Amino acid sequence: MKQSLFSKYSFGSDNHSGVHPKILKAIEKVNVGYSFGYGDDPYTQQVLKKVEKICGGDCRAFFVLNGTGANVISLASFLSSFSAILAPQSAHIIDDECGAVERFSGCRIIPLEMIKDKNGETCGKVDTQTVKKLLNLGDQHKVQPIILSISQPTENETLYSVDEIKSLAELMHKNGGYIHVDGSRISNACSAMNMNIDKMIAKSGVDILSFGGTKNGLLIGEAVVVFNQKKNKNIIESLKFFRKQSTQLYSKNRFIATQFDAYLEKDLYLHMAAHSNSMAKYLERKVRQLGKIKITKSVDTNAVYLILPFTQKQIEKLQKKYLFYVWDNSRKECRLMCSFNTTTQAIDSLVSDIKKLL
Amino acid sequence: MKQSLFSKYSFGSDNHSGVHPKILKAIEKVNVGYSFGYGDDPYTQQVLKKVEKICGGDCRAFFVLNGTGANVISLASFLSSFSAILAPQSAHIIDDECGAVERFSGCRIIPLEMIKDKNGETCGKVDTQTVKKLLNLGDQHKVQPIILSISQPTENETLYSVDEIKSLAELMHKNGGYIHVDGSRISNACSAMNMNIDKMIAKSGVDILSFGGTKNGLLIGEAVVVFNQKKNKNIIESLKFFRKQSTQLYSKNRFIATQFDAYLEKDLYLHMAAHSNSMAKYLERKVRQLGKIKITKSVDTNAVYLILPFTQKQIEKLQKKYLFYVWDNSRKECRLMCSFNTTTQAIDSLVSDIKKLL
Amino acid sequence: MKQSLFSKYSFGSDNHSGVHPKILKAIEKVNVGYSFGYGDDPYTQQVLKKVEKICGGDCRAFFVLNGTGANVISLASFLSSFSAILAPQSAHIIDDECGAVERFSGCRIIPLEMIKDKNGETCGKVDTQTVKKLLNLGDQHKVQPIILSISQPTENETLYSVDEIKSLAELMHKNGGYIHVDGSRISNACSAMNMNIDKMIAKSGVDILSFGGTKNGLLIGEAVVVFNQKKNKNIIESLKFFRKQSTQLYSKNRFIATQFDAYLEKDLYLHMAAHSNSMAKYLERKVRQLGKIKITKSVDTNAVYLILPFTQKQIEKLQKKYLFYVWDNSRKECRLMCSFNTTTQAIDSLVSDIKKLL
Amino acid sequence: MKQSLFSKYSFGSDNHSGVHPKILKAIEKVNVGYSFGYGDDPYTQQVLKKVEKICGGDCRAFFVLNGTGANVISLASFLSSFSAILAPQSAHIIDDECGAVERFSGCRIIPLEMIKDKNGETCGKVDTQTVKKLLNLGDQHKVQPIILSISQPTENETLYSVDEIKSLAELMHKNGGYIHVDGSRISNACSAMNMNIDKMIAKSGVDILSFGGTKNGLLIGEAVVVFNQKKNKNIIESLKFFRKQSTQLYSKNRFIATQFDAYLEKDLYLHMAAHSNSMAKYLERKVRQLGKIKITKSVDTNAVYLILPFTQKQIEKLQKKYLFYVWDNSRKECRLMCSFNTTTQAIDSLVSDIKKLL
Repeated sequence: MKQSLFSKYSFGSDNHSGVHPKILKAIEKVNVGYSFGYGDDPYTQQVLKKVEKICGGDCRAFFVLNGTGANVISLASFLSSFSAILAPQSAHIIDDECGAVERFSGCRIIPLEMIKDKNGETCGKVDTQTVKKLLNLGDQHKVQPIILSISQPTENETLYSVDEIKSLAELMHKNGGYIHVDGSRISNACSAMNMNIDKMIAKSGVDILSFGGTKNGLLIGEAVVVFNQKKNKNIIESLKFFRKQSTQLYSKNRFIATQFDAYLEKDLYLHMAAHSNSMAKYLERKVRQLGKIKITKSVDTNAVYLILPFTQKQIEKLQKKYLFYVWDNSRKECRLMCSFNTTTQAIDSLVSDIKKLL
Repeated sequence: MKQSLFSKYSFGSDNHSGVHPKILKAIEKVNVGYSFGYGDDPYTQQVLKKVEKICGGDCRAFFVLNGTGANVISLASFLSSFSAILAPQSAHIIDDECGAVERFSGCRIIPLEMIKDKNGETCGKVDTQTVKKLLNLGDQHKVQPIILSISQPTENETLYSVDEIKSLAELMHKNGGYIHVDGSRISNACSAMNMNIDKMIAKSGVDILSFGGTKNGLLIGEAVVVFNQKKNKNIIESLKFFRKQSTQLYSKNRFIATQFDAYLEKDLYLHMAAHSNSMAKYLERKVRQLGKIKITKSVDTNAVYLILPFTQKQIEKLQKKYLFYVWDNSRKECRLMCSFNTTTQAIDSLVSDIKKLL
Repeated sequence: MKQSLFSKYSFGSDNHSGVHPKILKAIEKVNVGYSFGYGDDPYTQQVLKKVEKICGGDCRAFFVLNGTGANVISLASFLSSFSAILAPQSAHIIDDECGAVERFSGCRIIPLEMIKDKNGETCGKVDTQTVKKLLNLGDQHKVQPIILSISQPTENETLYSVDEIKSLAELMHKNGGYIHVDGSRISNACSAMNMNIDKMIAKSGVDILSFGGTKNGLLIGEAVVVFNQKKNKNIIESLKFFRKQSTQLYSKNRFIATQFDAYLEKDLYLHMAAHSNSMAKYLERKVRQLGKIKITKSVDTNAVYLILPFTQKQIEKLQKKYLFYVWDNSRKECRLMCSFNTTTQAIDSLVSDIKKLL
Repeated sequence: MKQSLFSKYSFGSDNHSGVHPKILKAIEKVNVGYSFGYGDDPYTQQVLKKVEKICGGDCRAFFVLNGTGANVISLASFLSSFSAILAPQSAHIIDDECGAVERFSGCRIIPLEMIKDKNGETCGKVDTQTVKKLLNLGDQHKVQPIILSISQPTENETLYSVDEIKSLAELMHKNGGYIHVDGSRISNACSAMNMNIDKMIAKSGVDILSFGGTKNGLLIGEAVVVFNQKKNKNIIESLKFFRKQSTQLYSKNRFIATQFDAYLEKDLYLHMAAHSNSMAKYLERKVRQLGKIKITKSVDTNAVYLILPFTQKQIEKLQKKYLFYVWDNSRKECRLMCSFNTTTQAIDSLVSDIKKLL
């Protein structure tokens, strides 16, 4: 294999990174003997308990393959055929999953207008005011919103406060509904807010969480966590069927279990997230020092959004070397994403190249 | 981790085995640098070419996560909303996927009665006579069969001859339809029939293949292969959307690509399959030597079906040690599955335990 | 309009008949003034109460457009995405609705083998023994049967006894499931068994009924009736959404209401059904008198199945004049259906033509 | 039946009206003899030809039951599982059909921002500029817009010009897509623009039309018309299956056929529409004479939108007598709809009551 097939740098996505060495080790460690497939083995059961403990205890966890799958299963579990899902316009389930949720459930996702921050920027968040307007239930001609899906951190890597999550959850619950958190980067939120999943998610009244792993150094694997076992008993009993039916049940399940085992061991997941978050902060600082570049969104976790005042050609040249995405082409807003193995050397190199172009 | 979490033996499923060491090596090898996600990286593209070459060249390959996913995508690609799928009653898509195909497509799978072998046993195969009866198309009150899905080897690990596949494909094509092969164990078929995928599948007129990997020593990964690029042009263009929408697109795709790279290198896939097939033959021979045990199905690839003339309790004790399944409880027919890392020592131990009970 | 566009006779379907004069009158009667659409008018509400009274009182009725719609809504109401429906192989929902139930629900209908009568003929009925075998619930790889759908009378116009319905209902309930009756000809059953819907259906434990009208002289219109309001509270609350979503909500609802108003008035529905049933009996008697013709199924309601010992050509000539269907071409079994306006004269003519050919 | 069950006036919906006497007559006329069901009778075939002639000849017509059904079938016909539908935010398929299109197809409807007229009012129309932005096809993470659905007249009873329809059709076609017109009130458009369906719809490049009847004096019945038989050959062949599968195939089809027969005879459909349009114009004039009431949208066909400067209580009292809807509660914008049997007397009465309140 030619090394040129891989890139030295990437600020494109935390998916561009590979696998944390401890995770690979963990995979090797369980490559012994035989065990039942499809999660029916004692080791998987044992690791699930570990996940549930991290999530506060009053919950049930299920391993799945990827984030789209986690979202599909999480949402489908709460839906009747005439239900609708509420989600911010920029939601991953709307914008990046090729209609997987609608295909599986046949239900509509209603895109919600997002709030603006003090600078007039939308950062992927919605508030109770917007949601409330859509909760007029009962008219037989209309689909019936039953679940709100938000991302924490948001699709712009910004953060909801615990109070914000709580008030959204309360509003949904008061209307007989539910709340889902797409947590493909939930570890970054936990690290940034110095708060565990129990406090941020379970105690805030969230009903179901997509607990991401792949974007933070796993080879493959996510978990779906249903909270409040008494209230959501039926969901918990149905979830294994939704998982299998949506093609998300992994036959050699112990190989996901072992990754989560290592991931949660001694807070590896938080350490990795802390690293990517701090790299984003470092990048932000370096960019601000350049003076002439506008950072458009709050750097809450592991991404920096900025406007590169360059020509199309100059940007494309930079992209080739650093694999990042232009977010809003109309104003050349770019997204620079850091991951568990981003280095200060890489950031220095990028910033230096930007500087040369200024 | 306690070693007792894993079992010393399994004849339950080729999924009970772990990962071939060369496959794990291959995973480590690409854990360097960064690359685009979702298969948009040059390395994935390079390995896909390799898969396509193995499959005869006139085809397009797509990596997916698992067998259920491969089947869902393969079948969905050919369906209108009023189409039906024809499949043997024992098909994996009917019996083992919790309705995933119907959920995704909304289409019916019509279960086909299976043919009997000379001993009056059904071995998972269907013939043109049965299929033909269901191809009365055009009545607006009826769903319209458009694709036949067979497994090679079948769900009883027996084999269709090339002529049988050809005649089924011809029949479907003559009626404006298609044929899919669920090849979760296609390598075992190739090894047993001493024939490559090109000759057995592509040249027989098959339109689409689920090319399995996980059951034969991969960590995770399968490929969907569409043959006859000219005829199936539209399918090929649509397939990436079906894959994403069915949650089967893997973000860190290079880690599937590398497994297939190693799997196809120097025919590793055939060597592994040859081993499991030969272990089944060895097991068959050993059991036949015992004299008193009826083997119910032809041992064509890597499974042996036999009737264990024991009490329920005795069988359960054996199951505990060897993790195998009772297939037909009414006559205590059991399935013993061999895999890429089954040993003669394991078989000797099993047969010796059976002997003791006779 | 040329009169030749219509046929003088038909034994093809009770759908080939037109509309009972009293029903047409009723339509004219409400063609006055204005009223709210979609069933929100007081007149529709009033007639619904009348339907509910006929059905025993502890139920909720909903008007829909046609039988396929009634079945889709009835079944969909009880399904999760991984649920399955059990139904006799010959069920209308399997054989005559182009997959409407699967399309709407995404769920599988599992075809059940039918029982044979004392003459070895299948008459569209299933028994508890067959159903019981499929109620092994809990395996995540399998769809989960939740509702049994039977037709009363069956698709061969034969009848389940009350005890048979009761035992099927009990079995389903014991397993956490439900039972649906496709009653597109329920009036014929009521008349033949001299029993009202309350006694035959509600008191037997049926959860939901498609209460047919169109096949028995209505212009258009059926009702879905959910029984046991306490147990099926959620279904009742959801049903209006299923109806609208399945395109079965009629805007000018009062024009269905008025048909049911007249239909139930002074038992018109039973009188019409009594007529078609008695015509079938008359036809059976006449045919038996011919001596040489085998009647294959029990004449329980308004159809006669018989084997016409004629050439293909002779049968086609008869069909042209009397519009009936060949049911089983392999033995020339034909179905002769009587309706609310079948005449003895028509039957005499048919029998006389048959006699000439003998 | 108590007369009080019906209302003397309604400006609520053209659905609140009953059936035109000539239509009822036509129903009686075919209530003779017997004929094949499900549209397989010669009379239905004959009337379909008449519909097709009115629509320009190069098309195929299919009778269906209602508008929601017509829309579901029309749209589903063009969709792959990953396709998306584009439609104005206010579209009937988005706002008034309880998700029927999504349920049947599993596809997303993307709501389009609507253009504003010179007074800053949105009148239910979209333009090419808005549509164009959404036609970036090819990204596997995104659903793929394939069909644009507009209403003519719009959901606010305003009209697209032929040029506007043409340019939207052209844009879709250029991108490999299609255009659907929800014509539940298409006769009102034809009358207002003094233009037949051929010129307005077929010649403008529209691929498929929901040709409404029920809102303009039919008892029940609509037609789906596919244009450009060569280009849309596959759609035409599939449409009967979509119709049956969506529960929209009427068994006693001749009773829809006869309504359309009468509807098209001597342009009855245009005469009825001309009446309701002229009543709206009369109402507009009368209201403008009052001086103090703002009419918010262009009165293009049969509805008048106006702001009633009254208290909530006063409006409710008026609503009770005239059955109209408040459209935008925030500014007390009301919709007054006229129908084929609205009278000047009713309008005078309404306007006089409004005047008293001013």
